[in-house]
Amino acid sequence: MQKPSIPKGTRDFLPEVTVKRNYIFDTIKSVFKRYGFQPIETPSMENLDTLLGKYGDEGDMLLFRILNSGDFAKDVDFNGGESPEKLASRICDKGLRYDLTVPFARFVVQYRDKITFPFKRYQIQPVWRADRPQRGRYREFYQCDVDMIGSNSLLNEAELVQIVDDVFSALKINVTLKINNRKVLAGIAEYIGHPELLTDITVAIDKLDKIGLDTVNAEFAEKGIDSTSIAKLQPILLMKGDTRQKLDNLKALLDNETGRRGIAELETLFGYIDMLDLKTTCELDLTLARGLNYYTGAIFEVKAKDVAIGSICGGGRYDNLTGIFGLPDVSGVGISFGADRIYDVLTELQLFPETMSESTKVLFANFGSDEERYSLKYLRQVRAHGINAELYPDSVKIQKQMKYADQRHIPVVVMAGGQEMADGTFTVKFMDDGAQETVAADRLVEKIIDKLK
Amino acid sequence: MQKPSIPKGTRDFLPEVTVKRNYIFDTIKSVFKRYGFQPIETPSMENLDTLLGKYGDEGDMLLFRILNSGDFAKDVDFNGGESPEKLASRICDKGLRYDLTVPFARFVVQYRDKITFPFKRYQIQPVWRADRPQRGRYREFYQCDVDMIGSNSLLNEAELVQIVDDVFSALKINVTLKINNRKVLAGIAEYIGHPELLTDITVAIDKLDKIGLDTVNAEFAEKGIDSTSIAKLQPILLMKGDTRQKLDNLKALLDNETGRRGIAELETLFGYIDMLDLKTTCELDLTLARGLNYYTGAIFEVKAKDVAIGSICGGGRYDNLTGIFGLPDVSGVGISFGADRIYDVLTELQLFPETMSESTKVLFANFGSDEERYSLKYLRQVRAHGINAELYPDSVKIQKQMKYADQRHIPVVVMAGGQEMADGTFTVKFMDDGAQETVAADRLVEKIIDKLK
Repeated sequence: MQKPSIPKGTRDFLPEVTVKRNYIFDTIKSVFKRYGFQPIETPSMENLDTLLGKYGDEGDMLLFRILNSGDFAKDVDFNGGESPEKLASRICDKGLRYDLTVPFARFVVQYRDKITFPFKRYQIQPVWRADRPQRGRYREFYQCDVDMIGSNSLLNEAELVQIVDDVFSALKINVTLKINNRKVLAGIAEYIGHPELLTDITVAIDKLDKIGLDTVNAEFAEKGIDSTSIAKLQPILLMKGDTRQKLDNLKALLDNETGRRGIAELETLFGYIDMLDLKTTCELDLTLARGLNYYTGAIFEVKAKDVAIGSICGGGRYDNLTGIFGLPDVSGVGISFGADRIYDVLTELQLFPETMSESTKVLFANFGSDEERYSLKYLRQVRAHGINAELYPDSVKIQKQMKYADQRHIPVVVMAGGQEMADGTFTVKFMDDGAQETVAADRLVEKIIDKLK
Repeated sequence: MQKPSIPKGTRDFLPEVTVKRNYIFDTIKSVFKRYGFQPIETPSMENLDTLLGKYGDEGDMLLFRILNSGDFAKDVDFNGGESPEKLASRICDKGLRYDLTVPFARFVVQYRDKITFPFKRYQIQPVWRADRPQRGRYREFYQCDVDMIGSNSLLNEAELVQIVDDVFSALKINVTLKINNRKVLAGIAEYIGHPELLTDITVAIDKLDKIGLDTVNAEFAEKGIDSTSIAKLQPILLMKGDTRQKLDNLKALLDNETGRRGIAELETLFGYIDMLDLKTTCELDLTLARGLNYYTGAIFEVKAKDVAIGSICGGGRYDNLTGIFGLPDVSGVGISFGADRIYDVLTELQLFPETMSESTKVLFANFGSDEERYSLKYLRQVRAHGINAELYPDSVKIQKQMKYADQRHIPVVVMAGGQEMADGTFTVKFMDDGAQETVAADRLVEKIIDKLK
């Protein structure tokens, strides 16, 4: 007899957890819809052609490949000294999607004649990565992506900021939204005469607090950066103040077109943010980089204020996502919500609603076949009012039925024995305080609705 | 440049289709919840150990296998003359799930100590089969399963009947629910002295109308069935009348325990059905078999009355699903809804609601940056009232914006230019009749809510 188990890095979700996860997905979805985004779905498996080369060499290694059907090994020389990757490509044409971004780019190009631009889509589906499983890192996990494609307007960035605000307000998580702009980073690198140091500069600013200014400068010198460049970098490394002050400082410093455009974009975006009455703290963070090669304008990252955990949402603007599939010059901007981390935050802060609307509200106890028949009609009435209700299927001991109600957190138990049937009543028990009441059968629904309010 | 495409047998879903599919899933889900079923999820990939041998040899061939990560070919002798299946098992440990039933059985056994029995679960997830793709048959498709496990009560069957009734009533599809019982079929086979002919008898009854009684009898004779047995079968083959009459006839005929128990089960179930005021036509259908080896009691199948298409829902009772994973004697009963076929029925009968609640209701037109700022506040108000709304992101020609509203089926367009801003008003255009109205800005929400009612 095999002992049941699942592949490492994957998860089963028991009802209690699934309901909580659905609460997160439903909240995110309802906000996406309120902003006019439309759902799409793409297949779990893509042609390997579509996936390979899009995530770097390391990404290629982490793709789950699907063995070709039938006689996959025919005409393949396994002893020809080819690498495992080469061999894999001979016996696998398909792979599981690695993210939602590349499939979305493929989708936009493939259906460009059927899509209304600007195209606002959301997509909530699982992705798969053959990463080494560890705490908080899974081989199958959901991504919740929302993107607007085909418009350069910074209003789109402002919309995403509002979506972040609405989602985390609805979930009751206090967050900080950090905002940066790739053009500003490029402008700084250009300003000190080392465009190639774009990433190093953000890393340096980021670890300034930990290792100190002298060490940061020493590290730049070790990289062969001349003292003039390092001197020019000092006011940026030492920049203090709020978003407004930083923007003013940068404006005074940066003399190149790229930097100026980045600052103008940030000013416009923060201008929108100032107009909106947001709960979220929004701030400029020059250390924010997030996959720089990918983003071309705004960069976003959301952190929970009250839990030490990585980012729970992030994204930015990209200018040529669909280029790899033959449709150049399409600009887009999007963000992705990390459902697993949001789940952890809600759990740690005990922010999940106590009763989920999904759960059963009423259990009719079962005392035998006559009682069953008596109850069935009223059970149907309760359900017709949209109230989730059950009839215990077997007439077992009432203790067992009560235990079931308790374990399932069902707040109301409705009972009818011989007396109640004769009187045309039900005994209604409220599980929170154990109180019992006799109610006329035709007033049962009313009573329950009243109690559940 | 690669031309974007997806693997054969898989599908992309554009927004309009995704919204319609979600309407089906949401309708089904809300009924499942109203009956107290809880959601679970299992991983897309299972260990091949879990899947192999559960679907017959043909099923094994149709499993999608996932190539092991890393140096998968190490220590594998590809020239040892092993079959493709054997070789596949050496380089693949995991496969994509083929249905939701086997993973559910594994789940129940694996978490038996954490589950509250009777366990009522629903599960809506995709499954994958390496079938030859053809019209209406896909390699990735959703199953919507609802099962009650750990209770022998026929009330569970009655619950499933009501779920069928509620789902198809909500979708406005007229359906017939055909009901049979495996014990009755076994009883008939036993009665004529040929238990092994169980399947042949159902097939014979099924094609009686097409090929005639003489041919059916001749076919039985060809199989070596003696004339006494064939004679005993005649009243069953020729049985006419409604469910009640058929059950009475069978009761008079069948003298064995199995058959009698099956009839008693059907009588109980139809007794429940008579009590309930269902829209669905429920009838006994002795030709209904559906994977006989699997079911042990009730068998269900749903057909749409107004469209010629296969079954759109089906299921039944099984008595030892979890036995293969080491937990014997657990009885369960469940049904599965076929979302793809339901989609086809709704499309053919034009039963999808004209406006989906998901779609955008209001578009704010964009006439420039001052107008944007003026609109943003009211856009936010509209959304705060739960109304899906957008601001067109670019100040392009109004014709283009109107075309966008039209293509997206957005019913209300809100406009503000210099005059409106000066007056504190909006011009509201209703796309159905083209009527325009000037509305005070602070009464905009009210106006929109009124219109959308």
